Amino acid sequence: MTLKVGVIGGGQLARMMIPAAINLGLDIRVLAETEGMSAALAASEVGDYRDLDTVLAFAETVDVVTFDHEHVPQPVLRALVERGVEVHPGPDALQCAQDKIDMRARLTELGLPVPAWAAVETEDELQQFIDAHGGAAVVKTARGGYDGKGVRVVRAAHEATDWFTALAEDARGGALLAEELVDFSRELAQLVARRPSGDIAAWPVVETLQRDGVCVEVIAPAPAFAPAADEHTDAGVSTVEASGTAAARHGRHLASPASADLVERAEQLGRAIAEGLGVTGVLAVEIFEARDGRLLVNELAMRPHNSGHFSIDGSTTSQFEQHLRAVLDLPLGDTSPFAPWSVMVNILGGPQDGPLDSRYGAALAAEPTAKIHNYGKDPRPGRKVGHVTVTGDRLDDVLQRARAAAAHFA
Amino acid sequence: MTLKVGVIGGGQLARMMIPAAINLGLDIRVLAETEGMSAALAASEVGDYRDLDTVLAFAETVDVVTFDHEHVPQPVLRALVERGVEVHPGPDALQCAQDKIDMRARLTELGLPVPAWAAVETEDELQQFIDAHGGAAVVKTARGGYDGKGVRVVRAAHEATDWFTALAEDARGGALLAEELVDFSRELAQLVARRPSGDIAAWPVVETLQRDGVCVEVIAPAPAFAPAADEHTDAGVSTVEASGTAAARHGRHLASPASADLVERAEQLGRAIAEGLGVTGVLAVEIFEARDGRLLVNELAMRPHNSGHFSIDGSTTSQFEQHLRAVLDLPLGDTSPFAPWSVMVNILGGPQDGPLDSRYGAALAAEPTAKIHNYGKDPRPGRKVGHVTVTGDRLDDVLQRARAAAAHFA
Repeated sequence: MTLKVGVIGGGQLARMMIPAAINLGLDIRVLAETEGMSAALAASEVGDYRDLDTVLAFAETVDVVTFDHEHVPQPVLRALVERGVEVHPGPDALQCAQDKIDMRARLTELGLPVPAWAAVETEDELQQFIDAHGGAAVVKTARGGYDGKGVRVVRAAHEATDWFTALAEDARGGALLAEELVDFSRELAQLVARRPSGDIAAWPVVETLQRDGVCVEVIAPAPAFAPAADEHTDAGVSTVEASGTAAARHGRHLASPASADLVERAEQLGRAIAEGLGVTGVLAVEIFEARDGRLLVNELAMRPHNSGHFSIDGSTTSQFEQHLRAVLDLPLGDTSPFAPWSVMVNILGGPQDGPLDSRYGAALAAEPTAKIHNYGKDPRPGRKVGHVTVTGDRLDDVLQRARAAAAHFA
Repeated sequence: MTLKVGVIGGGQLARMMIPAAINLGLDIRVLAETEGMSAALAASEVGDYRDLDTVLAFAETVDVVTFDHEHVPQPVLRALVERGVEVHPGPDALQCAQDKIDMRARLTELGLPVPAWAAVETEDELQQFIDAHGGAAVVKTARGGYDGKGVRVVRAAHEATDWFTALAEDARGGALLAEELVDFSRELAQLVARRPSGDIAAWPVVETLQRDGVCVEVIAPAPAFAPAADEHTDAGVSTVEASGTAAARHGRHLASPASADLVERAEQLGRAIAEGLGVTGVLAVEIFEARDGRLLVNELAMRPHNSGHFSIDGSTTSQFEQHLRAVLDLPLGDTSPFAPWSVMVNILGGPQDGPLDSRYGAALAAEPTAKIHNYGKDPRPGRKVGHVTVTGDRLDDVLQRARAAAAHFA
């Protein structure tokens, strides 16, 4: 009679669901892509998530199917639902996490704030969009992008010629997404979780720092912030230069959390999207805080998300526990923070001369308050192989300790 | 190159090491007694821990061997060490957790405070001890007792006749442990962890509440306490009557933690035992706080312990993470609490009409701040099948929420 959750995909998000499942006494089973993945400990099956028979056989062993990623094809998702399998999030919601043009269209229908956008099928259409939006555009492939891949800032349509050529050669056809280059002061992320029966729980909005399109640091909650006049932004690609640090940006703004108004607006945005799209499980909304104060939706993820890893060590209910509760339609947990501040720093690449744990002697001795998370992946330049979380009362101190701990794994 | 920890025994203590191992990216392997135990997810082997070949084969797959329990026979432990296996805690230390007479003798040699005691081989010797100690004694079997089993309060030697008869029939012979009936006001527990290289980390001393010899509740840190004049104590068996509650005992003492002096004396006692006995890994020292203020050692456990379960949700470093770090001789983590108070309430027996998770709908809805831990064991009267932890700023509130959450599983 033990509740059984099936997770499709064996990456670190599935891995980090395992401790939450163990604590709650849930049976967690993972359909992994290959042997030896991050979530191998719970990988009861290894197989192709694009193969309906494989996924159906896996689904028959569990009470609910959920995901480590958003790549399961729609025909497979819909066949599961037709056969009565509980799938959370469901196909309609996932469609908007799989296709950025569909996501922009749905959010626009719902009247939610997004950057100006258009689906462009030709270079001419893209050039028109560029000309109408200040001489630049962010161009994105509708499908398959992540961590900055499939995203390009262009000032002339020919800079996307290769992508149009690829589209023309793709039997499915389609379009590219063109978006205005938002003049944003920083990036935020709003995490919420929604049960199939409708209840929603939200964590306080966090600030995320990207570098080359990859999340490097998360501050929870988002601190108060007044954009510096000389700050460089390059919307849609990276918030700060590779040489920059959040400390330099924040300067005198570290001491207090963001205004209640910002927190409330971000939460309402997260709730509106979760309800509007019928998301079940955890939803992460990546948000631009524009210089004019507007909050604009950047990307969506319908699963636990890098911006919520802080919650494992910093929140009464982690995003992984909450996701399991939500997809099982169990009551959601309290999202209060354990401490005034939590900072999460990603370990990107990892040491190139050995596994992460070869640095434990030095790292754990130097930073006894740091919570080290090691995804069990081989180090490789740029790869997310782990993260560090530190919690505490003063943001400058917490930032310093978290960065110092992560630096041991460079 | 991943660090590999082998745990002998597949119970809930091994189970609760798994999340800590996953977070730190350690490879955890469990030698379980049978299929389907609490730690089944990591049970790479099922076999008899008393069989040297089984244990040796298991040990060859890991970097260090540690334990879910203290029952591995000394010849097996010593054979492992002779073959160069890292075993933590080691055989000499474990001897004192396996045999209560040896424990009392070693602590006495070290000059550490214990109740008056004697090893008694006959009823005459026991009667002499009773007569010399106020007309009562706590009699314990030297080996094999737990959760109140193998412990009896007697006022005449014939009340232990059956145990003497059993001893006489045991080829190994031996003695019973007789101890004075300590006039204690409450029971405490001091948790420490020690690395093979010597470093020790201590958590603040906690108060434990036993009922019929079984831990039912832990308050971390131990609150300030002035014994009530009319309090009933029955040393060594239970702190309060089955109908009693800690709230009734504490009355006006809930608001503040115990004095710095008490905390310091308890920590020094824990450190002295860990060093004196050469314990590696987590050591739990069960302590009587006598009415005259003395701290007397009751029992020792050389592994994570029920009194430290609060640390999973209430401490920067949990006892399970710390145990893994300690047995691998890695630097120990910070033991600061997340909140002023943590209360852990055991789920004993569990619902007799279904599994624990059949109550999740009601329990999680009513107590969104409670952290539920379900050991995946079948409910059975009196069995430890899970626990609940709640943290917060006010002890009365935290106690109320933790008890209310646990009550859903009665």
